[in-house]
Amino acid sequence: MRANQPSTQEWVEGIRGGDRALLGRAITLVESTKPSDRSKARDLITAVFPHTHDAHRIGITGVPGVGKSTFIDEFGTQLTGQGHRVAVLAIDPSSPRTGGSILGDKTRMGRLSVDPKAFVRPSPTSGALGGVGNRTREAVLLCEAAGYDIVIVETVGVGQSELSVRELTDVFLVLMLAGAGDELQGIKRGLMETADLLAVNKADGDNLTRAQQAASIYRSALHMFHSAPESWRPEVLCCSSLTGDGLDTIWSRLKAHRAHQEKTGQWSSQRQQQGLGWMWGLIDLSLRESFHDSPAVNKTLENLEKEVLSQKISPPEAADRLLTAFMRTRG
Amino acid sequence: MRANQPSTQEWVEGIRGGDRALLGRAITLVESTKPSDRSKARDLITAVFPHTHDAHRIGITGVPGVGKSTFIDEFGTQLTGQGHRVAVLAIDPSSPRTGGSILGDKTRMGRLSVDPKAFVRPSPTSGALGGVGNRTREAVLLCEAAGYDIVIVETVGVGQSELSVRELTDVFLVLMLAGAGDELQGIKRGLMETADLLAVNKADGDNLTRAQQAASIYRSALHMFHSAPESWRPEVLCCSSLTGDGLDTIWSRLKAHRAHQEKTGQWSSQRQQQGLGWMWGLIDLSLRESFHDSPAVNKTLENLEKEVLSQKISPPEAADRLLTAFMRTRG
Repeated sequence: MRANQPSTQEWVEGIRGGDRALLGRAITLVESTKPSDRSKARDLITAVFPHTHDAHRIGITGVPGVGKSTFIDEFGTQLTGQGHRVAVLAIDPSSPRTGGSILGDKTRMGRLSVDPKAFVRPSPTSGALGGVGNRTREAVLLCEAAGYDIVIVETVGVGQSELSVRELTDVFLVLMLAGAGDELQGIKRGLMETADLLAVNKADGDNLTRAQQAASIYRSALHMFHSAPESWRPEVLCCSSLTGDGLDTIWSRLKAHRAHQEKTGQWSSQRQQQGLGWMWGLIDLSLRESFHDSPAVNKTLENLEKEVLSQKISPPEAADRLLTAFMRTRG
Repeated sequence: MRANQPSTQEWVEGIRGGDRALLGRAITLVESTKPSDRSKARDLITAVFPHTHDAHRIGITGVPGVGKSTFIDEFGTQLTGQGHRVAVLAIDPSSPRTGGSILGDKTRMGRLSVDPKAFVRPSPTSGALGGVGNRTREAVLLCEAAGYDIVIVETVGVGQSELSVRELTDVFLVLMLAGAGDELQGIKRGLMETADLLAVNKADGDNLTRAQQAASIYRSALHMFHSAPESWRPEVLCCSSLTGDGLDTIWSRLKAHRAHQEKTGQWSSQRQQQGLGWMWGLIDLSLRESFHDSPAVNKTLENLEKEVLSQKISPPEAADRLLTAFMRTRG
C-alpha cells in the first residue's frame, strides 16, 4: 500500500474515469483486513454506491478441471467483441493462506487479461468470518462504478463459496463435465439445485456425444426438482471453449433469464433481498465481533471453555455467564 | 400447562425416578416459547445435566415414504427385547404451524408406543431461530436423565433438519429406498455425505434384488467421497422392517461405529465440539434477540429498511446506523 492514499473523492473520480490501476488498488483496499483500511473502504463503497446496480452479475462455478478459466476467457472475449465491458472476479476458497495465488496467475485468461475492455482480478479469500462474500460484493460494486456492464464472479464449486456467490449475483451458471462419476459429483454437491443454467463444457471432438448424453442425464435429473410456476426453469446446454460452440447460446439464454426475471419482478426483488441480507449479515458479524473482542468475555471464556469441554457445566449455563459478562461491561 | 408446576427438584426426582408423564411434561416445558417457561426449562436442564451423557444418540433420517416409523417401531422393539430402554424423539420440519401433528400420531409406532421400556415423543418444530436443534437437544438430555440408554432422533430428510440432528447425535443412519430416481434423490440431498450408515429399507419379497442393486450403487457412490484415514467409513446395508431382516446387523454396525469412535477418541471429541457449538449457537441467538428486541433498533429500522430496498442507502451504511442505535442504548 502506498503512503499517499487518494481521498474518497479522488478514488471515485478515478474509478469512474476508467483508471484501471486505481480500480485495482480500490479492490485491494476493500480486501484489506486492517481496521484503518476497513473504514476507508466503507467510505469508498458508500460513495460509489449510487453509481452501481446497472451490471449483469453472473456467477460461474464448476468443479476443478471443468475448464472455468478457459471458458471465461473465450466467453468474455466474445462479449467484449460485442461492445460489452467485462469484469471478472475470482474467488479461490482453496488457498486462504496464499491470498489467492492459485488464481492469481493472470495468464490463466490470456486473452481477456490483456483486453482493454476487460478487467480480470483474482479476489483473495479471507479466513475471516463472512469475509469472502462481503469483500467480493464490494469488489463487484467497484467494477460496476467503473462502468463494467457485465461482472462475472468465478468460484470453484467446492464447499460453501458457491452459496456466497449466489447471494451477490443475478444468475448462476454451473459448468459440468461429461465423464465417469461427474454426474454424481455435480448432483452430490448440490450445484444443480442452485443453477439457473447448466452447461456441459468440452463438448467437442470425440467428447461431443458423451457431452450430449450427460446433458440429457442432467436434464432428467432437473425434472426431479420442484419449482414455483412463475420461476425460471433451469436449462442444460452444451458448449466448447475450444471451438467456441454454444457460447453464443449461453449468452442469449442468460439474456432470456434476465428478461424473465425483469418481467416477473424477480430481478429487482432478488437484488433487494440481497441488499437486506448483506445488511443483516454485517450486523451479525459486528455483534459477534464485539462479543469476541470484549475483554470481559475473554476473561470469562478462559476457564469456562474447559468446564464445558469436561462437561462440568452445561452449554446453556456457560452461554448465560458469557452473555452476562458481555452485558455488564457494555455501558 | 397446569397451574401447579413442580419445582426443579421435583422435576428432576420424578424424571430420574421413571415418571413418564412427568418426562412428557418436562419436554413440553423445554419446547415452550413462553419466556417464563424458558427460564424454568433452563433451570431444569442445568439440574439434569450431570445425569446425562450415557446414552447412545442415534439420528435417523430418510425421505418421506422410506418407512422410518415402521423401521423404528421394529428396530426399537428388538432393542427393548434385548433389555435396552429406548426413547424416540421425532422432529417434523414440515408442519411448523400444527406443532408436529403429522408425526404426533403415536399409532405410527404401534408396538413401541405401548412398550414399557420405550418412550415415543414427537417434538414439534418451531419457526423460531435455532428452535429445532436446541429444543430437541434439551429433550434428548431429559430422556437420558430418565435412564433411556438409546435415544433415537428421527427427522424427515428434507431441508436443513438433518444437519441439526447431526449436531446432537453420535451417529447418523440414513434410510434409503430402491426405486426410480431415488438414487439421485438421496445423493442430491446431501444425505449420503453426512451418513455413517446407510440402509436400503423394504428389502423383502419382490423388492429384494432391486434393494441389493441399489445398495451396490450407493456403495460405489460412497467411494467417491474422501475421508480421513482415521475416520469411520460409512457402510451400506439392506434391511426390512416387515421381516425384521438386517435389523440385527444394523445394531451390530452401530455398536461397531461406537467402538471405533471411542477407540479413536472421536466419540468424546465430537460430543465436546457439540457442546461448544451449542454454547456459541445460544450466544449468537441471544445477541440477535437482544438486537431485534431493542426499541432503538426497531425505531431506526422502520424507515431504514425502505431506504435499503429502494437503494437510497447502502447496506453497510444501514448496518452502521442500526449498530450505532443499538450501542447507544446499551448502558
